[in-house]
Amino acid sequence: MTRKNAFYAQSGGVTAVINASACGMLQTARQHSQEIGKVYAGRNGIIGALTEDLIDASIETESAIAALKHTPGAAFGSCRYKLTSIREHRQQYDRLIEVFQAHDISFFFYNGGGDSQDTAHKVSEMAAELAYPMACVGIPKTMDNDLPITDCSPGFGSVAKYLAASVREVAFDVASMSRTSTKVFVLEVMGRHAGWTTAACALAAEKEGDAPHLLLLPEVLFDEARFLARVKEAVARHGHCVIAVSEGLKGPDGKFLSAQGSDAFGHALLGGVGPRIAALINDKLGTKCRWAVPDYMQRAARHAASKTDVEQAYAVGRAAVEFAVAGKSGVMPAIRRLSDAPYRWDIIEAPLSEVANQEKLMPPDFISADGFGITEAARRYLAPLIVGESFPPFRNGLPDYVKLRNESVPRKLAKDFAI
Amino acid sequence: MTRKNAFYAQSGGVTAVINASACGMLQTARQHSQEIGKVYAGRNGIIGALTEDLIDASIETESAIAALKHTPGAAFGSCRYKLTSIREHRQQYDRLIEVFQAHDISFFFYNGGGDSQDTAHKVSEMAAELAYPMACVGIPKTMDNDLPITDCSPGFGSVAKYLAASVREVAFDVASMSRTSTKVFVLEVMGRHAGWTTAACALAAEKEGDAPHLLLLPEVLFDEARFLARVKEAVARHGHCVIAVSEGLKGPDGKFLSAQGSDAFGHALLGGVGPRIAALINDKLGTKCRWAVPDYMQRAARHAASKTDVEQAYAVGRAAVEFAVAGKSGVMPAIRRLSDAPYRWDIIEAPLSEVANQEKLMPPDFISADGFGITEAARRYLAPLIVGESFPPFRNGLPDYVKLRNESVPRKLAKDFAI
Repeated sequence: MTRKNAFYAQSGGVTAVINASACGMLQTARQHSQEIGKVYAGRNGIIGALTEDLIDASIETESAIAALKHTPGAAFGSCRYKLTSIREHRQQYDRLIEVFQAHDISFFFYNGGGDSQDTAHKVSEMAAELAYPMACVGIPKTMDNDLPITDCSPGFGSVAKYLAASVREVAFDVASMSRTSTKVFVLEVMGRHAGWTTAACALAAEKEGDAPHLLLLPEVLFDEARFLARVKEAVARHGHCVIAVSEGLKGPDGKFLSAQGSDAFGHALLGGVGPRIAALINDKLGTKCRWAVPDYMQRAARHAASKTDVEQAYAVGRAAVEFAVAGKSGVMPAIRRLSDAPYRWDIIEAPLSEVANQEKLMPPDFISADGFGITEAARRYLAPLIVGESFPPFRNGLPDYVKLRNESVPRKLAKDFAI
Repeated sequence: MTRKNAFYAQSGGVTAVINASACGMLQTARQHSQEIGKVYAGRNGIIGALTEDLIDASIETESAIAALKHTPGAAFGSCRYKLTSIREHRQQYDRLIEVFQAHDISFFFYNGGGDSQDTAHKVSEMAAELAYPMACVGIPKTMDNDLPITDCSPGFGSVAKYLAASVREVAFDVASMSRTSTKVFVLEVMGRHAGWTTAACALAAEKEGDAPHLLLLPEVLFDEARFLARVKEAVARHGHCVIAVSEGLKGPDGKFLSAQGSDAFGHALLGGVGPRIAALINDKLGTKCRWAVPDYMQRAARHAASKTDVEQAYAVGRAAVEFAVAGKSGVMPAIRRLSDAPYRWDIIEAPLSEVANQEKLMPPDFISADGFGITEAARRYLAPLIVGESFPPFRNGLPDYVKLRNESVPRKLAKDFAI
C-alpha cells in the first residue's frame, strides 16, 4: 500500500477534550506509518484546507502530542464555517481537491459537532463524485451532547461534571448566606436547543432537597407563574433555591427568552437569560437572587474533566484512524453503551449521512412530569458520563497546558482562495 | 483552670476554605479539653448568639470535622449582620452576655472579614466594659484579600487559583475560535474595592502575549478610549484578547460602572460590569466578544482550591484557639510572610482594633504604569498563594462534601430576641 498523507481539523465550538481526540488520532496515525505519511492539520478547521494553510503536525514531539490529552481548546484552531452544497458552490470543492492533491492527502478527518459532520459528509460525497480517492471519517465532539447515533458526545461528560460540581459548590455557598442575604441562585448553562447540559446539573442532587431545586430546560416552554410558585416553595422548604437555566430557554411563544443576534451559521446567539430570570425573582418575589454565567469557562474547564469523557474522546480519535486505514469512508466512530452499571461501552460505525445536521434532543421520558427536573432514566443515562477524575499536571499552581509549534507546511499552490 | 465553653461562628461572604478554619479551630479545641468544654457554633454567625440559636459542634464525629477541611461554604451558616456600637444599641450586648453566661461561654471566636472583625472587636470591648471574662479572638477570612496586617487572607489564594486557571483555560478556547467567531472575552471578577482578585488573574500569563491581556482594576478609573485602543491592539497582535474586570470598576466620575442597589451593610451591590464591557467592545469595535460572570462559583470552588490557602486557613483556626487558651483576647491570628521564594510564613498576633473596618487596597507599586496590568512586585507577592493542589475526595464523579448534623443546643433563656 502506498503511504498517503492525512488531513485533520477541528471545527465548531471547542471542548475540554477535543484535543484528547486529536491526541488519539495523531498517536494512532504514527502507529500506522505504513499507511499514513504526514498528518497535516488545517489551521482553523476546513478554512485551513481551503486557504492551503496547513500545519505540519508530524514535527511535533511525542511529549507535545501526549500533552494534548490534557489540554483544552483546539490545538490547531477551530472555525465556524459551513460548506455550501456542491451544486451551490462548486468552486469550494474544486479547491479542496486541488489542495488535497497538491499535498498528497487521501485521509480526511474532521472533528466536530453536527455542522462539522455535515462538512465531513459533503467532503466524502464530493470525493466520491469526483472519483478522488479519499477516506473521509468524522470524529464526534460537542459539549451539547446533541449528536445522533452516538450514545454520548465527547466533550459533554466534562462539561456535565464541571456544571454538576459547580452547582453543588454554589449550593453550599447560598445555603450559608440564605439567612440574611442571597436565597436564590441562578446558573445559566450553555446548550442551544437540547437540555443535556442543564439536565446534567441535576447530578449534583443525591437526595430530596439537594440543589439544584429547579431546572429550566429548553425542551419545556417557560411558564413564569408556575416557575415563581416553585421558587417560593423551595425557599420556604429548604431556605434557599438553586436553579439551572438553559441559555436556550423558550417562552410560551416558542421564542428564545434571550436572543442576541445570530452566528455565522444563522443560529441564534444566546446569553443573558440567567440575569433575566434572576431579575424576575428579585422583582416578583422580592427574594435576593444572584446569578452566574460561566459561558466558555464551562467548556474549557479541563482541570475538572471527566475521566470517562477523556477516554472516550481519545478512543474516537483512535478509532477514526483505524476506520480509515481499514478503507472505510463516510463514517464516524460512535459510542455505544453496553450497560449502565457497571458502565461499559464500545465503538461502532455511524454513517455520516445519518449524523450530519441532526440534533438529538432529550427524550421526553428523561424530563420529569412537572418539567422542572429529570427522571431516574435520565439519571441512569447521565451518571456514568461524569465518573472519574483526569487532572492535568499542575505547575506553579496552575494547569500546565501545551501549545504546539504549529509550523506551516510550505504552500504548493500559486493562487489564494478567498473565503 | 475551670473548663469553659466556646462560641464559634462564621460571618460574611463565605469562601472555599472558611470551613478549613473551622476544622482547625474545632480540632484544636478538642485537643485543649482541659480548658475548653463544648464548642457551640452560632447558627448563621452572630445572629445565632443573639437569638440563642446555638449548634452543638461537640457531637460531630472526628471524620465529619476532618471533612470540613475540604468542604466549601459555612458549615454553621453565615450572616451579613453588623453589631452597632455599644452606645447605640446596648440591648444587643446585654443579650449577648446573657446568652454567653447561660451557656457558660468564655471563649469567643469569630471567623470573617473586616466587618466581622469589627463584630469580634466590639464583643471584646463589651466584655471588658462589663467585666465579663471572655477571650475574644478573630479568625481572618475573605476572598477579597483586603484585611490589613495579615500578609494575605485565607480564602483569597483559592479564588486566585480558580480565576487564574479559568483565565488560562478560557484563553485556549478563545484563541481556538478567534478566526471566525469570538475574539474577545471578558471575565467579571468579584471584589468590591480592592483589585487583588482581578490582579490574581494575571498569574495565568507567563510570557508576553499570554492571557489575560488587560486587567480593569477597581483602583484605576475606567478610561473608555484608552481601553478600547488597547483591546484593538491586542486583537491585532495576538488574534484575540482576554480581559479580567473587577465588579468594582469605577468610571471617570469615581462611581461604580454597575451599581445594583446595596446590601445589608450599605455596601453597593455590584454585578453586570462584565456584560457591559463586552457590549461596549461589540458596539464600538464591532469585534465579537463574549463574557462570563462566575459570581459565587469562584469563591465556592473548593475543587480547585490552593493547598497553601487551605493550610493557612487551617493554621489561623488552630492559632485562634491557642491564643485564647493562652489568655489572649482582642486579637486575630495574622499571616506573616518570611520570604517569597521559597515561600515561608508564620502566624503572628494582630490587634482587632487595628483590623476592624480596614480595607487593604493594592499598593500603587503593584499596578503597572499603564494601569492595565500588574508589576513584578505584585507577581512575587501573588505567585506563592496559589501553589499546591488540595483536591477534595470525589464520589460518583463529584466532590464529596460534608453536611454536619447541626443539632441545636437546648435553649436556656425564656425570651426571644428580635434581630
